[in-house]
Amino acid sequence: MVNRPLEPLKNIRIVLCGTSHPGNIGAAARAMRTMGITDLVLVNPQRYPDPQALWMAAGATDVLEAARICASLGEALSGAALAVACSARQRDVAVPMVEVRVAAVQVVTVAQQRPVALVFGNETSGLSNDEVGACGLLASIPVDADFSSLNLAAAVQVFSYELRMACGATLPDDKSQTLATHEVVEAFYGHLERTIIATGFLNPEQPRKLMYRLRRLFARARLQVEEINILRGILSSLISTKAQNKGRKKQ
Amino acid sequence: MVNRPLEPLKNIRIVLCGTSHPGNIGAAARAMRTMGITDLVLVNPQRYPDPQALWMAAGATDVLEAARICASLGEALSGAALAVACSARQRDVAVPMVEVRVAAVQVVTVAQQRPVALVFGNETSGLSNDEVGACGLLASIPVDADFSSLNLAAAVQVFSYELRMACGATLPDDKSQTLATHEVVEAFYGHLERTIIATGFLNPEQPRKLMYRLRRLFARARLQVEEINILRGILSSLISTKAQNKGRKKQ
Repeated sequence: MVNRPLEPLKNIRIVLCGTSHPGNIGAAARAMRTMGITDLVLVNPQRYPDPQALWMAAGATDVLEAARICASLGEALSGAALAVACSARQRDVAVPMVEVRVAAVQVVTVAQQRPVALVFGNETSGLSNDEVGACGLLASIPVDADFSSLNLAAAVQVFSYELRMACGATLPDDKSQTLATHEVVEAFYGHLERTIIATGFLNPEQPRKLMYRLRRLFARARLQVEEINILRGILSSLISTKAQNKGRKKQ
Repeated sequence: MVNRPLEPLKNIRIVLCGTSHPGNIGAAARAMRTMGITDLVLVNPQRYPDPQALWMAAGATDVLEAARICASLGEALSGAALAVACSARQRDVAVPMVEVRVAAVQVVTVAQQRPVALVFGNETSGLSNDEVGACGLLASIPVDADFSSLNLAAAVQVFSYELRMACGATLPDDKSQTLATHEVVEAFYGHLERTIIATGFLNPEQPRKLMYRLRRLFARARLQVEEINILRGILSSLISTKAQNKGRKKQ
């Protein structure tokens, strides 16, 4: 199965505590869904259900429809082998604090086998110390010290993104961008060198590091198969034009 | 200067092309600002300025106030040594495509010295092929294949976060969480061992790996200075209670 490395995402639960704005619930659902996380739990949402939530979910309605509403954080954490408090604020609570990227690796390790919950607080007041204390880990996104006001859904987006990345997510393969192998690139360099010797641009008696500099340029570009075909096509056309021009001059 | 590693963020420009909803411009400004990026350029925004933008910026008004409005992408990219097209879609254009995390490292490397622009398209249609073609790199956030509809401000948030991380951003130090040094931890283990021998819980003749298992537990917790002080306080109080009880029994 192609998606096997992303399996832990199915064991991840996003818990939103006392959310004020239903639009943020919808935006959080959308953020989760883009990263392949679908289990949403709402603890005492202030206004829900609400059309604003649906509107901001922008199609991630399956996440909203399956969302469970709980009366307490304890209920929302039921069955979770690890609960992570997601908070921007530093706190005096006895929970170790790590960066979101570090937390994501730990979460995905546990979620290979067992459910993990990520807990987010209210938009204004955040998580209470008691809520953080109910978790085994406190995770934070490094923010600007002068402006740390991260939107709730934006925080859910960054956490969900890091969880997907921690699963080893990559972009789908682009076949048109297949890198050329060593021998194909070397054959191109050979063709290039013969051509510029033939045109007189490169004097083999005084090479002045020209091929070295051209190699450096193309190495930096990391040539693709299709590009080499185009470049060699151009080289071949130059030689035949040159031959034609020579032919014309002789006439 | 403490913030020196974050200097490249000052050379980073966020360019939003043909944005439809002013709310998204505000939310993007907020997203940038939380990560310490402040240079915003708007190419032909459909509704701007607008109270919705201010409202969604949630205090990042300095970013909006300093934002420049351009009539073309070319004008917005003026002076940039590298332009990165930020897009979820795969394309046939001749621009190398990389993940946002890889792009962020390249961007920060260039931004040490020179301005770099990150270009985002319209909410519905994204970037045109011509707009992507004007850039030197195409960067993408790995998304769920079934639901790739990332909100514009959410995409700006993830890119800005990755740029901050690529600068080596970390959480501010939490002095209360200073890890205890080796000798402090060993002194605690010594105190613990003497105490449980004194209470009779550990029989030195038959230690049954007890200290080994306790060490493993505390090693996993990675003890902090303050915690060791508390634990040793508890150990001391146990012994004095024991002494008192013995005293009482004798009476």
